[in-house]
Amino acid sequence: MAGNTFGTLYKITTFGESHGKGIGVVIDGCPSGLELDEDHIFAELQRRKPGQSKIVTQRHENEEFEILSGVFEGKTTGTPLAIFIRNQDQRSKDYSHIMDKYRPSHADYTYSKKYGIRDYRGGGRSSARETAARVIAGALATQVLTQMGIKINAYVNQVGNIKLDSSIEVDYSKIDDNIIRCPHPQTADQMIDLITKTKKEGDTIGGAIRCNISGMPVGIGAPVFDKLHAELGKAMLSINAVKGFEIGSGFDAITMKGSEHNDAFENVDGQITTKTNYSGGIQGGISNGMDITFNVAFKPVATIISAQDSVDKEGNATIVTGKGRHDPCVVPRAVPIVESMASMVILDHILIDRSTRLEDLI
Amino acid sequence: MAGNTFGTLYKITTFGESHGKGIGVVIDGCPSGLELDEDHIFAELQRRKPGQSKIVTQRHENEEFEILSGVFEGKTTGTPLAIFIRNQDQRSKDYSHIMDKYRPSHADYTYSKKYGIRDYRGGGRSSARETAARVIAGALATQVLTQMGIKINAYVNQVGNIKLDSSIEVDYSKIDDNIIRCPHPQTADQMIDLITKTKKEGDTIGGAIRCNISGMPVGIGAPVFDKLHAELGKAMLSINAVKGFEIGSGFDAITMKGSEHNDAFENVDGQITTKTNYSGGIQGGISNGMDITFNVAFKPVATIISAQDSVDKEGNATIVTGKGRHDPCVVPRAVPIVESMASMVILDHILIDRSTRLEDLI
Amino acid sequence: MAGNTFGTLYKITTFGESHGKGIGVVIDGCPSGLELDEDHIFAELQRRKPGQSKIVTQRHENEEFEILSGVFEGKTTGTPLAIFIRNQDQRSKDYSHIMDKYRPSHADYTYSKKYGIRDYRGGGRSSARETAARVIAGALATQVLTQMGIKINAYVNQVGNIKLDSSIEVDYSKIDDNIIRCPHPQTADQMIDLITKTKKEGDTIGGAIRCNISGMPVGIGAPVFDKLHAELGKAMLSINAVKGFEIGSGFDAITMKGSEHNDAFENVDGQITTKTNYSGGIQGGISNGMDITFNVAFKPVATIISAQDSVDKEGNATIVTGKGRHDPCVVPRAVPIVESMASMVILDHILIDRSTRLEDLI
Amino acid sequence: MAGNTFGTLYKITTFGESHGKGIGVVIDGCPSGLELDEDHIFAELQRRKPGQSKIVTQRHENEEFEILSGVFEGKTTGTPLAIFIRNQDQRSKDYSHIMDKYRPSHADYTYSKKYGIRDYRGGGRSSARETAARVIAGALATQVLTQMGIKINAYVNQVGNIKLDSSIEVDYSKIDDNIIRCPHPQTADQMIDLITKTKKEGDTIGGAIRCNISGMPVGIGAPVFDKLHAELGKAMLSINAVKGFEIGSGFDAITMKGSEHNDAFENVDGQITTKTNYSGGIQGGISNGMDITFNVAFKPVATIISAQDSVDKEGNATIVTGKGRHDPCVVPRAVPIVESMASMVILDHILIDRSTRLEDLI
Repeated sequence: MAGNTFGTLYKITTFGESHGKGIGVVIDGCPSGLELDEDHIFAELQRRKPGQSKIVTQRHENEEFEILSGVFEGKTTGTPLAIFIRNQDQRSKDYSHIMDKYRPSHADYTYSKKYGIRDYRGGGRSSARETAARVIAGALATQVLTQMGIKINAYVNQVGNIKLDSSIEVDYSKIDDNIIRCPHPQTADQMIDLITKTKKEGDTIGGAIRCNISGMPVGIGAPVFDKLHAELGKAMLSINAVKGFEIGSGFDAITMKGSEHNDAFENVDGQITTKTNYSGGIQGGISNGMDITFNVAFKPVATIISAQDSVDKEGNATIVTGKGRHDPCVVPRAVPIVESMASMVILDHILIDRSTRLEDLI
Repeated sequence: MAGNTFGTLYKITTFGESHGKGIGVVIDGCPSGLELDEDHIFAELQRRKPGQSKIVTQRHENEEFEILSGVFEGKTTGTPLAIFIRNQDQRSKDYSHIMDKYRPSHADYTYSKKYGIRDYRGGGRSSARETAARVIAGALATQVLTQMGIKINAYVNQVGNIKLDSSIEVDYSKIDDNIIRCPHPQTADQMIDLITKTKKEGDTIGGAIRCNISGMPVGIGAPVFDKLHAELGKAMLSINAVKGFEIGSGFDAITMKGSEHNDAFENVDGQITTKTNYSGGIQGGISNGMDITFNVAFKPVATIISAQDSVDKEGNATIVTGKGRHDPCVVPRAVPIVESMASMVILDHILIDRSTRLEDLI
Repeated sequence: MAGNTFGTLYKITTFGESHGKGIGVVIDGCPSGLELDEDHIFAELQRRKPGQSKIVTQRHENEEFEILSGVFEGKTTGTPLAIFIRNQDQRSKDYSHIMDKYRPSHADYTYSKKYGIRDYRGGGRSSARETAARVIAGALATQVLTQMGIKINAYVNQVGNIKLDSSIEVDYSKIDDNIIRCPHPQTADQMIDLITKTKKEGDTIGGAIRCNISGMPVGIGAPVFDKLHAELGKAMLSINAVKGFEIGSGFDAITMKGSEHNDAFENVDGQITTKTNYSGGIQGGISNGMDITFNVAFKPVATIISAQDSVDKEGNATIVTGKGRHDPCVVPRAVPIVESMASMVILDHILIDRSTRLEDLI
Repeated sequence: MAGNTFGTLYKITTFGESHGKGIGVVIDGCPSGLELDEDHIFAELQRRKPGQSKIVTQRHENEEFEILSGVFEGKTTGTPLAIFIRNQDQRSKDYSHIMDKYRPSHADYTYSKKYGIRDYRGGGRSSARETAARVIAGALATQVLTQMGIKINAYVNQVGNIKLDSSIEVDYSKIDDNIIRCPHPQTADQMIDLITKTKKEGDTIGGAIRCNISGMPVGIGAPVFDKLHAELGKAMLSINAVKGFEIGSGFDAITMKGSEHNDAFENVDGQITTKTNYSGGIQGGISNGMDITFNVAFKPVATIISAQDSVDKEGNATIVTGKGRHDPCVVPRAVPIVESMASMVILDHILIDRSTRLEDLI
């Protein structure tokens, strides 16, 4: 089982490679009767797109998608939607420099050993190009969630050691005001400067994304293995370059005491809320109606310009030198991917939740 | 779908509540012909057991398990193993103090809202008592992995602000030499002191566990949604009180450059290894043969002695006061749980991997 | 994956062997708030029970079950129910006569070859004793369906060449009036005579069960691989001794013309129905509101008294002679099993269906 | 969950509609390193193709497929294969005659009620056009099975009341010698005559297909819910127009005695076989090495020329008259579909079986 399917009731399967025919997704379980907003899908793809600014890769990729099935007279029919983005440029570029070599911290070595064969062109299936398919499926899920009053906002929280001060209140409407997607202009400028500098050095830098989900109903999730934050964690850790995930207080909880960390309940105008939200909106694996908040850590992109020690497929020592146009930092383009994965997890669990109580069934 | 099943080929389903008849697990897909080592299971349960030391809860729990199926003449038959631990003391204690109140940062409120009914006795299904079932199933998986030369070692890495110095080389054989399960005696003493002090204050404290998996074959895992570290992440985040997970460099990767973070390959005596291991043994979602390393963050236990603001089921303001004997810090008892969950993820993916290549099939 | 789990949202996992500790089931996804009717479960087990009449095996089995989890104050909590029947008599009987021999048309040979080990006592996991667990889980599903107005009635339609005349209108209230469970007294008597005669000869005989599901809502099922009748078919074919399944017209459809077979729609007092029901209540894999009707064919029980040619585990020719008290015909006891499996399939698809349309979600 | 995914380790997801952009399939879990034989896929599609002979629909469909992913330098890479057949002619034909009417014994009514919306053009997703995707995925599975020495042969066994005499020994090499795909020339001629006559009457007729799988290893399958014949049964019942499935003796078993039906084991030149094969190659849900044999019953095609009573979407009585070019009998074109579904079930269970025994893992 190659693990290319995600979700239980809102279930997607992605396919495609960086330099093959294209990238696609089949979405099975999208509720019927949804008026498909293709512009929204396209807009989300633009946010993930290479070449969108000076701080991302200048590679050119096609983002024009074709809906192959599942829509009739502009609405989803309840049957699977297949959506495909054809790769524009499949010219057989010269990949001889990596064909037989394993690039450090890429998937070259592990794919070769697992499958005995590897599409080495641009990373093949291991390329982050695959995430375009996730953004399409996530954009659809978001359309459904929006109609339920649920909003998902991710933004860049840190690049290298430039971190958004946690005391700053975030205005989500400003996220896309700058090319780094940090809603605080001054911090954004510092982040952009750091990336620009790193890029000039032919190097790359890590970063972090913070995500906030508001408008959550109470009671979404599951109590044991499929805890809502465990599902979100898996979703995030499945994104290329992600090294860490934390929900609510996260790693800060290690140094906290129970008396500080506990979220006291209160009744505010008939609405049960908590005074603090160290739980990150989830208790016992189930949403409590507070905003869901989590952070995702991204490593520096593995492709760098400088020469690196490696081995070739015979195990001989060799040198690998980065070519091509790659991202100096992955986070600005990863924002819509984080939102997409979150969106699918939340929708899936909302669908699952509908069969929970007997009183809702009879 | 209540999400009480975990795994694909090595698949477990747990059941039971803290103060019901007991706790159990069904293991479907355990390889046949395994000589069952009941002592090993029992020993692992002892490591998770309440009352094992002065720094854990002094609650008394039964750990005697009964194998209900799946074993014949001491060996697994390939059919499902069901294993049950009967709760010793089901006396109807007085739980009226929490029956209609929502304890802060527990699952009381979310369970009530999701299901419309809640077994409030000792937390019911949300109690960490459920993890005893995981330890049983993990101990079995470990028996299989041991025969493959794979070793999983978890230990306490941090309690509050007492952190094991990362420059110290860890001797896994010393993990169980002390009651906190930190293999460095001096640090262990400091941790124990901190917990003892916190306990006296009627408070609780967070902590962290680090896990190391050695002897991994190359090629285990999957490239896209079911990346090996995404599966490990979900497994860890499904453990009660876990707030964060990081693989390899983890959150430290945020501030690193690609030139630092990349793991150069080298050939050491015919074995391809990497000079550093910021990848944490996994590249592109697939094991590269290096040790798999990850950290898990635990929040402070939510049950504390002091009075806390809360609401009751009618939404009226109320006060909740902790009763009973609870853990001042969850990490010493969580070590075998982390190992168990890791063990099941690794075994499951090893089983899945066996059908990957055509050449192995014909 | 040993395949001991059934269903998607109403998901059961069974375990246990004929002569081990007992037989059990975990039910995950039972709607919360169901008032558990233990008497109903017990009554269904009585219908499956050995020794209930002179035409079934006189073997003695315990049917007393214990609910191990998932129920609180008499109601389901939404967490997994585990229910266990302890085998009464685990005395180590003498099974040396089949220990090393493969009984013809049993699972002895295939289990041995697949797993390399086999619990030969009474058939172990391959014994129809496992179906007691299905009846428990089915009885629960039936309780939910009953509250939705759905009724499932199975009855014996044929034993050997004694077949219930298809022109006879069946009165479901008479099914349990006789020991063969055929609602037509005269046919029932003939069937009982045939079984009695066959039993005297030390032989066994095949039979068939017909099932009718009324009160079905329109729109339950799925269009492609998980067609409702495909799911019912799999469910029935998974019952021990079943050799065939047909929905609606079934094998008779082979000789029919489209002009005969098509079910014309009509509007009867505002209700859309069909004039005939060759479709068996399902069109395109989805229920159309008409009664669902299907037949299930059972082979003669494999255990017979006469000596039969076989081989032993070394492959040497040997003779197998039936011992013990076995059913001369399986169908009277299989009626509640057929109903149980049908019940679970229908409930599962009703739960799944609840997330189909956008308009029901917002 | 719309149920468009089939299989566990060899897992396919199909998509597309009869008159949408096209029909496709994603195959996840195909073993890596398989040299893709596109000619074989194409040849299988030709066997399913409309217009291939005078006794099938003269509709024109495109069968040119495009491989969108998963193949590199002619070999499968272990990543998902997506294969797409673009519909040639998407001209907006006049479907107003069925737009608001429910054709008897089609899926029009049930789709409309389930989803609230329906792509009525040519049946949309409910069209048997979807099975082209299954044939592609089955052809790939067959390539793998062939390398293991497993052969799957289906043929037409019955059309109306013309039935292949069961005493005739079948020569599988003759199956494609005639347009009905019955390997006995005289019977084939009679079948063709009957279909031709039925077609002239504007009517349709049912039929049956028999399938034989040889070269099976012993031990494939699972003992309880996922019995190998239960999986085959579900696979067959998921094919459009199928009304019944029987394994081995099937419905004939009803009238048989145990002493007749039991398959005595014997040792023939060191190979354990059975003297008869009423079990159909499967015992206790697991293959015993004998040929697997089963029958599949197909109803007469629902589209007929004569006027039929029906209702429209407002529930008013109306008349539906068949238009277009439809199959007078579905079986000749269904032969490769039966083989494809069988092929995928067998391969999937062979892949699953590889992780069964401990001794194969260490």
